[in-house]
Parts: sequence; C-alpha cells; structure tokens
Amino acid sequence: MILETVSTPVDIKALPKEQLNILAAEIRSELINVTSANGGHLASNLGVVELTIALHRVFDCPKDRIIFDVSHQSYVHKMLTGRRQYLKTIRKYGGLSGFQKRSESKADPFGTGHSSTSISAAAGFAAADKLAGRDNITVAVIGDGALTGGMAYEALNNCASYDNLIIILNDNGMSISPNVGATSRLLSRIRVSKRYFTFKRLTQKVFSAVPVIGTGLVDIARSLKDWGKRHLVHENLFEQMGMHYFGPLDGHDISAMEDVLREAKADGKCSVIHVCTKKGNGYAPAEKNPAFFHGVSPFDRESGEIKESGKTYSDVFGDTLARLASIDSRICAITAAMESGTGLGGFARAYPHRFFDVGIAEEHAMTFAAGLAAGGMKPVFAVYSTFSQRAYDQLIHDVALQNLPVVIALDRAGIVGSDGPTHHGMFDLAFLNSIPNLTVWSPYTETELKVCLKQALDLDSPAVVRYPRGRVPESKSVSDLDYAVTDFGQSEFIYNVLITTGSESAEAYRACEIAHANGVNVRLIRLIRVKPLPDITHLLKNARVIVTAEEGMKKGGLGESIAAMCAEKQLRARVTVCGAEDFLPHGDIGTLRTLAGIDSTTLAQKLCE
Amino acid sequence: MILETVSTPVDIKALPKEQLNILAAEIRSELINVTSANGGHLASNLGVVELTIALHRVFDCPKDRIIFDVSHQSYVHKMLTGRRQYLKTIRKYGGLSGFQKRSESKADPFGTGHSSTSISAAAGFAAADKLAGRDNITVAVIGDGALTGGMAYEALNNCASYDNLIIILNDNGMSISPNVGATSRLLSRIRVSKRYFTFKRLTQKVFSAVPVIGTGLVDIARSLKDWGKRHLVHENLFEQMGMHYFGPLDGHDISAMEDVLREAKADGKCSVIHVCTKKGNGYAPAEKNPAFFHGVSPFDRESGEIKESGKTYSDVFGDTLARLASIDSRICAITAAMESGTGLGGFARAYPHRFFDVGIAEEHAMTFAAGLAAGGMKPVFAVYSTFSQRAYDQLIHDVALQNLPVVIALDRAGIVGSDGPTHHGMFDLAFLNSIPNLTVWSPYTETELKVCLKQALDLDSPAVVRYPRGRVPESKSVSDLDYAVTDFGQSEFIYNVLITTGSESAEAYRACEIAHANGVNVRLIRLIRVKPLPDITHLLKNARVIVTAEEGMKKGGLGESIAAMCAEKQLRARVTVCGAEDFLPHGDIGTLRTLAGIDSTTLAQKLCE
Repeated sequence: MILETVSTPVDIKALPKEQLNILAAEIRSELINVTSANGGHLASNLGVVELTIALHRVFDCPKDRIIFDVSHQSYVHKMLTGRRQYLKTIRKYGGLSGFQKRSESKADPFGTGHSSTSISAAAGFAAADKLAGRDNITVAVIGDGALTGGMAYEALNNCASYDNLIIILNDNGMSISPNVGATSRLLSRIRVSKRYFTFKRLTQKVFSAVPVIGTGLVDIARSLKDWGKRHLVHENLFEQMGMHYFGPLDGHDISAMEDVLREAKADGKCSVIHVCTKKGNGYAPAEKNPAFFHGVSPFDRESGEIKESGKTYSDVFGDTLARLASIDSRICAITAAMESGTGLGGFARAYPHRFFDVGIAEEHAMTFAAGLAAGGMKPVFAVYSTFSQRAYDQLIHDVALQNLPVVIALDRAGIVGSDGPTHHGMFDLAFLNSIPNLTVWSPYTETELKVCLKQALDLDSPAVVRYPRGRVPESKSVSDLDYAVTDFGQSEFIYNVLITTGSESAEAYRACEIAHANGVNVRLIRLIRVKPLPDITHLLKNARVIVTAEEGMKKGGLGESIAAMCAEKQLRARVTVCGAEDFLPHGDIGTLRTLAGIDSTTLAQKLCE
Repeated sequence: MILETVSTPVDIKALPKEQLNILAAEIRSELINVTSANGGHLASNLGVVELTIALHRVFDCPKDRIIFDVSHQSYVHKMLTGRRQYLKTIRKYGGLSGFQKRSESKADPFGTGHSSTSISAAAGFAAADKLAGRDNITVAVIGDGALTGGMAYEALNNCASYDNLIIILNDNGMSISPNVGATSRLLSRIRVSKRYFTFKRLTQKVFSAVPVIGTGLVDIARSLKDWGKRHLVHENLFEQMGMHYFGPLDGHDISAMEDVLREAKADGKCSVIHVCTKKGNGYAPAEKNPAFFHGVSPFDRESGEIKESGKTYSDVFGDTLARLASIDSRICAITAAMESGTGLGGFARAYPHRFFDVGIAEEHAMTFAAGLAAGGMKPVFAVYSTFSQRAYDQLIHDVALQNLPVVIALDRAGIVGSDGPTHHGMFDLAFLNSIPNLTVWSPYTETELKVCLKQALDLDSPAVVRYPRGRVPESKSVSDLDYAVTDFGQSEFIYNVLITTGSESAEAYRACEIAHANGVNVRLIRLIRVKPLPDITHLLKNARVIVTAEEGMKKGGLGESIAAMCAEKQLRARVTVCGAEDFLPHGDIGTLRTLAGIDSTTLAQKLCE
C-alpha cells in the first residue's frame, strides 16, 4: 500500500507521478472506511482527493499555509500531514477534529468551521508575511458554495494586492444542496466554455509577445494590448477584481493541477485557480446523492444505506410549517443553503414559490425576511443557532428595531456533539436576551415545538423558537405554554428548585430523580417561554436552593437572568447557575454535558448541597 | 419659491421641466441651512438632490417603494414627501429621524441606518409583491461605498429574478472616506469609459434587430446574438449576475435620469441604474472636503467652518495607538471605512503599510484581524459598537475560539444621541459577556483609555476596549485598573452602593452627590475592567442596597452579571439594575438617559429608596 509510505508532504513530493492515482484510490477507500464507521463529511472529501495531493506536491506545508474554507473537506489534508493514524478517532471525544484546528497540527494554520472565512484569514496571513518580510505563500481553498457568502466577497474585494496569496476555487456546483443564485450561474458560464482556458492562454501569449520597447511606442503598444485583452480575452469577475485567473481545470487530474499550481506559485500575483471537482467522486452512492453524503451518520459501506433514526426536531418543524402554510398563504420559508438540514424539503416541494434558499447568506436572509414581513408576508427563517450569529446585527437592526413579525426557527440550539465548538449552539440564549420586542420559546417535546411555532406565527412581533439537534422525545401534551412544573415530593416541603429549559430537560429530570432518591424534595420548573421570562416567583417562595441548568453559556444566559430576578426580588435562596463557561470541544453529547457541568449527576449534587 | 408649492410626489410630477433645476437649487439651500444649524449628513444629501427629484417624477411613492441604503441621504426624500416643514427638527428629540423610518411616514417603507441592507429589504418587498399579485415597484438606492459590504453582494446574488426591483447605484467614489478595494476599481473602470452607454445601446439595438423567426433559424440567430452581445458588448458584473444595466449616467442631469428611469420601469427586468454623483455638489466647502461634511456638527454656513470641540475619545485612542505603534512594529490598525471617525487618520499617515481600510466590511475586518494575529502581528480593529454587531460571529468563531490576540477598539459604546436607535451602542456589554477568552475594559478618563489600550495590546488573548462617543473628560490618573472606589460619607456607615462603568460614570457621580446631600452615605464603584468581573464582594459586605447603572441594555448586561454574582454569593442586598429596556430614540443624550432611567435623578432615587 502506497499510503503507508506517505505521511508528510515531503513523502508526497517524492512519489513518482504514476503512483499518484493509486494513492488517490487508497485514500478514497480509507475515507469511506472511516466515515462509514464514524459518520462525518464524506462527499466533499472524496471530491478533493486529487486536489489535496496536488497542493502538497507543489506547496511546502506548514511553511506555506493551506486554509480550507469550512474545512469539512480537510480529511485528506489531515491524512497527508501526519494524522492518518488518528483518522479513525475523527469527530470522537479526544480524537481528531472534523475541521482544521490550530491546536491539532502546525499544518492547520487557522481553524475554520463556518463558511466563507478562508480568504479573509488568508489575506491576514499574507499581509503579516509581507510586513515581516517572509516569503511564505498562503493558499485558501474555497468552494463555490462558500462563495455565495458575502464575507468571501468582502475578502476578494481586499486581496488583489497580495502576490503571496492563492485562492483555489473548488467548484462542484453545490453548497450542501445544489448551489443557488447569480454567482452560481456566473461560474457555470465559465465552466461550460470548455476551451476557454486554452483559447485564453493562447491569446494572452500573443499579446504578451507584442514588444513594448522604445519610449514613443510604449503607450500605443500598451493600450493595444489592453484593448485586445479586454475585447478578445473575455474577463471574468475575478479578473475584473484585479486577480489572475487560471482555469477551469479538471479537479481530478493531478498532473494538470500541479502544472497550473506551479505556474500560479511562480506568477507573483494574487491568483484564483478554478478547479472543477465532483462531490462524492469515486463512491457511487455519494456521487448519486452528494447532498445526503455531505455529512452523514455511520452507514453501510456496500449499500451506502443508513439506518432510519427516528423523527428529529427538524422534521417536526418542517412538517408543522408545511401544514400551517397550507392554511395560511402568507407563510414563507427561508434557508441559507440548509434545505434538508433544517427539515424544509417537504415545504420546498409543496410551496416552491414561498420557499427561498438564498445560499450561505445569513445576513441577507434575515433582512430579506424583514422585507417580506414589511410586505405583509409571514416569513420563517430556519437557521442553525451557531450560524444565526452571522445575522445578529440584522436581527437587531432590521427585525427587532422595526418590530417586524419574522419568525426565526433556531435549529441545533445547544450541544451538537461531534461537529464541536464551531457548531455548538451555546450562545443564543445569551445574545437574544438583550434584544427588545423579541419573544423566545425553547420547547422540549414534539407538541411543544408545534404549539410554539404556531404561537410564534400568530404574534405580530418577532419571535424565536429554538430547539436542539437530534431526535425529538415522545410527545407529552402540555397545558401551559410558559412553563411546566413537576414536583418530586410533597409540594409543601419543597425547598429545592431546579429550573431548566429545552434540550436540558431530560437531564434535569434525571437529576431531580437522583436528588429525590437521596431524600431531597425537588421541584422541577421547565421553562418553555424563556423571554420574556414568565413570572415564576410564586413557585420559588419556599426555595432555599435554586439551581438553574441550561445547554448554553453561563454568562448572560437564562440562569443569570433568573439569578438577577431573584436578587431584584430579594428572594432568600442561594442561586447556583449551571452552564458552560468555556468553549466545548467535539465529542458525544453526554461527555460534553459532563464537561460543562450540566449532567444529571452534577445537577443532583448541586440540588443536594 | 417653487419649493413651497411642492410637498408631495404628485406636486413634483406636475412641475414643468424647466423649473426642476431651480427646485434643486432651493432644496440645496435649505439643506445647508438646516444642517449648519442642527448638524447632520450634508454632503451625501447634496449629492442626491437631482436623483431624488427624478425618482419622484417617475415612481409613485408610497405605492412604489423607495429604500435608501443607510438613508443618511434621505433628507431630500423627506422634504419631497410631506416632511419639509419638520426638517428643522431633524435629529432632535421628538423630531424627524436622520434616517428613513417606518413609523415616520408611509414614504419610508423600511428603516435603514446600517450599510448594505437596502437590496435585501427591497428583494423582500419584491418577493412579497409577487406572491400577493401586486404591481408595485421597489427601488433600492445604494452607494458604491455600501457595495463594499458583503451583504449587498449576497442580495445581488439573489435578486436577478425580481422584475419589479430596480437598484440605483449612486456612485460617488466614496464611502465616508474615499472608497477602497476591487469593486471600486471595477466601477471606476466602467465610469471612465464615457461612451460606454451610447456604444452599448447602439450595439444592443443592432442585435435586437436581428430577426428571430422560423424554427430552424432560431437557434442560430440566438447564438449569434449571444456571441455578439458577449464579445462586442462587454458585460459588467451586474450583467454577468443576470441584471439589466443602464449607465453610467450624470446624476445631476434630471432629464437624462428621468428618461432612463422610465425605460427601466418599463423594462420588466431587474435593473441596475448606475448614476454618477458628486458628494457635496453645489456647496463649495462640502465639494472640497466631502468626508468632513459627511456627517457634521453645526457649522458656519458661509465659511463651512466648525468650532473646534476639544479632544474626543477617538482622538485619544488614535494618538495612543500611533504612539504605541512607533515602538512596536507589529501593531496594525484596521477600519471598516471609518478612518477619521475612529481617529485613525494620524496612524494611517504615519504607518500606511500597517493601516488597513477594508471598506464597509466588518465581517472581513474581524477575520482578517484574526489572520494577522495568527501571523504574528498585533492587530487593532477600531469599530463603532453598533457596527461591531456585524462581526459577532467572526469575533466568537475566528478570534475568541482560537484565543487570538486581536484588540477591538469599540468606539461609540453607549448612547450616541442624534443618530438614534440604529447607532446607539447599547448591546455590546450584553453580547460580549458570554464570549470565553475575552477581556473587556470600559475606561472613562483619558488616562484609563490609554492604559487599558496598552494592557489590551500586552495580553496574549483577545480584548475589547470600549469607550463612548464625544469629548473625553479631563484626565484623572488611576491607581487600579480593575475598578475605582469613591465613598460619599464614612466608609463604616455605608450601606448603599452604586456600581457603574464607562460613560455612565459622570452621571453616577452626580447621583451619589445628590443622595449624599439627602443624608445617604453612598459608595461609588466604577468598574474599569468589566469582564472578567473583578472581585468586589469585599466592597459590598455591609451593603443593603446595590444599584447598578450602565449605558446599555439591562437584560444580559453588566448589572445582571453583578446581580447574579450577588445571588450566587448570597449577599443580602437588594439589587436594582438600571439600564435600557427598550430601543432608545434619537435626541440629546441627557433626555435619552432619562428615558432609559439611568439619569442622576433616577439613580439617586434608587439609592435613597
């Protein structure tokens, strides 16, 4: 096996050319092995096997820096930079991260996870290298999906002057779902003109050959060249923005890519290299269904099939919204390239005109929703908690300040598990708390999610419904949509109260059972509406100990709100706020809960103190 | 005076053409009158007088919706939509807003204030109109400066399909400062080709004349037209993105603009109309110095001169940073198109290679700073508190998670006054609180600001130094950089404590004086470091009443942090948290402080309760 002899970029450079395709095949096989066992991002990694090999043959990592945008496609890079032996630990607690991570390897110069950051970070390195007089090259590998994010455009607008910066545009025509919008059309137009590259290089050569000598002739020759370039060599967006453009190239042809990468490296200009790859390349099930194999749970290697895993919160959200939309024609759904992730597939098929996939563009999505609402519609923007951070200003400035009835369906609120710190939804309770006009629900059961969504749509002001990743517990109907109370022991002897919400509910329930088994009477208050805080002071009157527990940050979150309320109302209870105080790593949710001090054992201890 | 006969779009349409330039001159004169007395955004409004007249002659406002990006250039629009008589109240408490505002007039369909939101909002209206079967047209007027914001690009990427949407690109070559980046070069390239428009229309006409009849010929004719268009009619970015492009036009020629606007209105496609205007047009001092006259304090109408108003926090920040940069060559400064606003003019002149103006691109700025820091530099991103909301995700994900030593200089923290709710910096204390690894200072005096900035740069982790708008008080040196204590009365008899920070300090001091004059002994604790919270419990031991006061949101802010700490430590004090609970309008800072319940009288009352 060739792969066994290759563990660093130096090894890759030493390989004879004819072995490279065999190496690629071996890498693919190992990728499928690991992801079928662990789950993970398969399709995108299968797409960049040859590209990553070519990159490491041309550039000197870690001296030259390679930053993968989002970096779910960095598994091959990890294998080729000394981490292959740990690949089977990927996304497991204590194991390799599913993304690039500075603390993991010198080969990872910058951690990524959210889309469209790579060019900005790479420009930062390029500027730092210039100022320090270093000759490193920084490479940003960015997909066409990430290019729909405005931040990438902001970066492109600022990087033409860095001659030590190379941008690889990994064009597979997809975000997670097929790509949308004008940029996509723009790229595909370049892509289909197959002979574009050859033709262009030819004409460029011709114009380069026009001699520019003698003072009098210089201007004429220059303007001739300029005219010719502009009119015969059709310039694309990147060239218009001042960068050199190479492509489009076959992203599965290592040798061709090597040639062009070397040329760009020697070119001494900020370059964009347009590489066309096939998501899922080399594994039939993933080629057929790349969106499904973007990020997968463990699956059967032969069939590519995954065990059905029950109804998720996203499913319930999507189904409920579609049902409500059948009654109310004003209801619209918006997603930032997360149609299936947010459970909106059914809605999109049933109401295509009221479904808007805007690309990886959370900022636009939020203000677009505000515009829809101002125009009389009832927009619902479904977005992961962690990505909603991108639209924070728009939520305050365009939605809340104008008190427009936009509903934000906040998926993946709380700990998400193996995707780790870039994807946990730990901040929303804290950053939503201060925003006026906003109502926030944090349902736990299926029924609660449905009813909260309905209520949110009935409000004439902005609302957030937040819910966790994963399977929804069996439905229990609720009578009160503000909170639910369960007493463990006789209510007149209850002095200890546990207050929780949403995804922390099951853990809190177990904590109460443990505490009660240890002879402590406990009241569990599960908040369903968390903002404005329902009046629960009458439930706390006898309390000596109040413990709050949430899957979110301790500072500024729900618990501190409650503690502040207790201090203002001069309740005599000792309040213990439980929540995360630091970023949480990746791993199984149980372990991470324990790390954050919000597991049932810890909570029970606090209740018994 | 013609202007006196014109108060609605209907009146404007009725005016004979030859009176329009006189109307424009009268409007200019009134604009100068009002802004010289009130202060406000002058240069940008002088630039769009003719454009606004042309818009109202062609479109039927409010049925057709006109959304101005940022909308500091909407004064003329306000004058022409029934609000001229109130213009002298602009930016004053209870008067007209300096921006578009839904609650102010039906002619303002969407409130703006932050950059680059207009196309997203307009697309929302356009989509809503389509779904509702209405025939309204929505117009977004966006400057070339706002086009450097990624959100505008996200919107452009999503709007080509709206045939009821018209985008006016108001190109004056500037943000507040001269414009930067590749987009700017791209636009100027279009701009300089003077005959572009004429030539293009001619060739387009020729190709439109190619007959497309008979089944067999259709394809050939089509591809011929296509080829011709692409090769002879050079396409620009907007056309490549699928929109119709008209321009560039002289933005001070009402008649020419009217013609093209009518053409675009009838065109039945999403159009971009590129209008070239001169910022400050028609007032010599503003033409000469448009950046200075972007937003001004009251000035002398004749000379254009403004009274020197003393040293601001921004000045102190800029001067200090430049001085530190002379010693440490790793220090870089980054601004998002706010060089002079953030006080970085001196730094930019002294260290041009270490100064980065990235355009109105806060997202990119933050991650670019993270890249610089990872590359070994010491970047300082100076940004207004309200605009930093744009980079919230990048602060969490790229800076704090990686614990990179980026310093954020947060200017305009707290109430800003006449710019109003879109510009107050009310949320930062709340949204920063939950972010791990982050240190936050909130200095009050000149010395404190200097020392905090130095400390922030010496940290090996991310830091925020936040300070308010306006003049810095005379310097008082401080011994301790965590907090400062002042006792009003003998310390052993002090049971009432007021805790405050930053810009609220002077007001808090007065409150203590009032309370003390009323016989109450008070301790004032002024926090200079607000995160992590310094240990002040020993100062609160005898406290019966603790009042906290901050120029920021009550929920999730500093006060709730302190209240939560008191509840956790079971201090027996009653804690009263004072902070804003709603968005604050525009007006003088004193009035707004009273509205928020953080004025000295209210605080003194709470201390005496």
